[in-house]
Amino acid sequence: MSEKVDITILDSTEESFDERLSELLAWDEVSDKSVQETVTGILADVKSRGDDAVMAYTEKFDRVSVTSASQLELDRDSLQGALESLEQSVKEALIIAADRIRSYHEKQVQESWQYKDDQGTVLGQKVTPMDRVGIYVPGGKAAYPSSVLMNAIPAKVAGVAEVIMVVPTPGGQVNQMVLAAAALSGVDRVFTIGGAQAVAALAYGTDTVPAVDKIVGPGNIYVATAKREVFGTVGIDMIAGPSEILVLCDGKTNPDWIAMDLFSQAEHDEDAQSILVSPDEQFIEAVKESIERLLPTMERAEIIRKSIVNRAALIKTPDMKSAVAISNRIAPEHLELSVDEPEKLLPEIRHAGAIFMGRYTAEALGDYCAGPNHVLPTSGTARFSSPLGVYDFQKRSSIINFSDVGASEMGKIASILARGEGLTAHALSAEYRVKQDG
Amino acid sequence: MSEKVDITILDSTEESFDERLSELLAWDEVSDKSVQETVTGILADVKSRGDDAVMAYTEKFDRVSVTSASQLELDRDSLQGALESLEQSVKEALIIAADRIRSYHEKQVQESWQYKDDQGTVLGQKVTPMDRVGIYVPGGKAAYPSSVLMNAIPAKVAGVAEVIMVVPTPGGQVNQMVLAAAALSGVDRVFTIGGAQAVAALAYGTDTVPAVDKIVGPGNIYVATAKREVFGTVGIDMIAGPSEILVLCDGKTNPDWIAMDLFSQAEHDEDAQSILVSPDEQFIEAVKESIERLLPTMERAEIIRKSIVNRAALIKTPDMKSAVAISNRIAPEHLELSVDEPEKLLPEIRHAGAIFMGRYTAEALGDYCAGPNHVLPTSGTARFSSPLGVYDFQKRSSIINFSDVGASEMGKIASILARGEGLTAHALSAEYRVKQDG
Repeated sequence: MSEKVDITILDSTEESFDERLSELLAWDEVSDKSVQETVTGILADVKSRGDDAVMAYTEKFDRVSVTSASQLELDRDSLQGALESLEQSVKEALIIAADRIRSYHEKQVQESWQYKDDQGTVLGQKVTPMDRVGIYVPGGKAAYPSSVLMNAIPAKVAGVAEVIMVVPTPGGQVNQMVLAAAALSGVDRVFTIGGAQAVAALAYGTDTVPAVDKIVGPGNIYVATAKREVFGTVGIDMIAGPSEILVLCDGKTNPDWIAMDLFSQAEHDEDAQSILVSPDEQFIEAVKESIERLLPTMERAEIIRKSIVNRAALIKTPDMKSAVAISNRIAPEHLELSVDEPEKLLPEIRHAGAIFMGRYTAEALGDYCAGPNHVLPTSGTARFSSPLGVYDFQKRSSIINFSDVGASEMGKIASILARGEGLTAHALSAEYRVKQDG
Repeated sequence: MSEKVDITILDSTEESFDERLSELLAWDEVSDKSVQETVTGILADVKSRGDDAVMAYTEKFDRVSVTSASQLELDRDSLQGALESLEQSVKEALIIAADRIRSYHEKQVQESWQYKDDQGTVLGQKVTPMDRVGIYVPGGKAAYPSSVLMNAIPAKVAGVAEVIMVVPTPGGQVNQMVLAAAALSGVDRVFTIGGAQAVAALAYGTDTVPAVDKIVGPGNIYVATAKREVFGTVGIDMIAGPSEILVLCDGKTNPDWIAMDLFSQAEHDEDAQSILVSPDEQFIEAVKESIERLLPTMERAEIIRKSIVNRAALIKTPDMKSAVAISNRIAPEHLELSVDEPEKLLPEIRHAGAIFMGRYTAEALGDYCAGPNHVLPTSGTARFSSPLGVYDFQKRSSIINFSDVGASEMGKIASILARGEGLTAHALSAEYRVKQDG
């Protein structure tokens, strides 16, 4: 049953390794001029014509025709109904996942704080949730209920008053699990629209769809391009690249487990990237064997094969230390530490979206129900960004409340520095508050 | 001495108010195609030719010619020397400001956390500083030492190992206060380069300038455009619009103080926006009188006049409650609560970059030495973004460490949900860890 799979095998001690790794990791977002122009047109049209434009594009792209934009909204009952309609085991699984995600994210809530300095001046930081947030959920086959939980729950935990979900229903096709997840997450309103027109409606507002402060959630190239364009008018989350996993293994995990962990990444799409790094050459051989034996049995074998052949690698290193260095260089979205004492490696890990520790922690658990978010920085952006979290739906305001004494003392300092910068109105504004007898 | 100033006066109860306010607030970043093309060319050139391109553009734009790129680096001694060369009062003021900024930002440091659930599974969040950060500092006259403190200190407090500053020196002109601020902030390396070529060098790295993980700091339209383009390769901070202040006043502050507070915003540049909102009509008249009397005495009267005439407004409201509602709609960068008991208004304030409480808290104090950051969200983006802070230089990784029991229990849940989404490799990867006897 086994078939030969042409997977890249690298040795980190070879001279050409750095270059070959760079080639393997190279990823450029396709920036298509025609996509750009289409999106710019749709955004401008929705901005000026509002609901009429949204209805027209929904008819054109999703083949859903309505006479009034309000028909594009789903009522609360249909969400709750979707939840009740699920098979009991699926419903229970969704509820358990939602509970675990909520309970983890509650730990991320940031609180306001203040303190008084010795001149009686109060300084602090006020934390406020955003007023209204939009969540984009892809339609059709790629509609993932887990994605609804991961985007909506942090927003509600942050205290966002109104979470608006948009999800296209191409040809009228509604995904009951997605609606059930929306009900469980506390989504406030759902509109069955998608594409750049949905992003535009959320960013600018229409008579029917209220304007939001931030738009999050995954989407195709039109959605991603639209989000990039409305950034500034509203906040957006990261523009995600293809999903990736890096497994660091000491060679003592069942190679079938590791092969399946790599597959679970590869099955997302052909551009997904799966990398194993291990100091154990025989283990690398064993995983390759598992890959070749298991691949033909997989439902999504075609996608997995393309992803493995084009984007995967099994990397042999002299030791665990070099393996960790490679991981830090790659800054993977998902990092599995499939070793005996993962705690010992943890302090050395500098960049990763999520770290899955120990042989039992399959990355797939994190996708659904571990608790932490599955929206993670891709393509090396874990060097400077974080998982989606409650902090993405809260913002801070600085608090400054000077006592008269403090204003007088600090006014002198501000005055000197403002004059040093040639800003005399700044200086005078501060000097007015300096005590004349001081 | 008084001169008539044609400042906009609005009444929030008038029917046309909403529309007039929207017009006043309207701000579109100038998106110039020729700027875009120039920047794209410079970025590509620096990416491919490295130091040679950086040297060529530095000669072209800054009229600084060097034979080796290493000559574009300032050594540590010249930074320390700049600090020692300052007048004693200026040096002391910079030191006091740096100390206060450091001590406020130390309160923002986020710590890693972990907890164990009742199945013995460890979940948590690991907080790590970025490895290397670039700070852009504009050259020439607009070089502000306070901006160096505000950008570099949070990065160092976050624990960033290497802070790289770039500052152009047009015609060889070096600003000693800027270098002194770099010395005080703990900047690690300084390169005298600017423009899109400096952004490119930081984003891609050259033989001389190391690649960074994030680029922060203000710059002209070329710098802003370049930052937008390299976003994704590196992190960036917000692209700032013109600076704004909104003063809420009960009418009992000295009108000269308020006029000067408005001027301190207006003197930044002609596009800066200064707004007073007050329920006291006579006070609004008094502030107008102060503006007309004080304006001719100002050093930067020309800039202030243009800003006040084109972008400012004095807004009369029926009461303080409507004044707060207008402030929340505007979501100002700087908000002064010039009232008796500002604490009482604070819970009603939903969106603002920084809140300056009480009659003594001039906004200018916050620009230099109050402690909180002066890099704040502009143009209404305080609805969804925060002041620059330590959190902008730290990032988070999720921690997941399943016990064998936890992996078995949650594996069943993940399997159900993965199969619901049609992702069978995910399901199998989880199922491998489910105990067969369970």
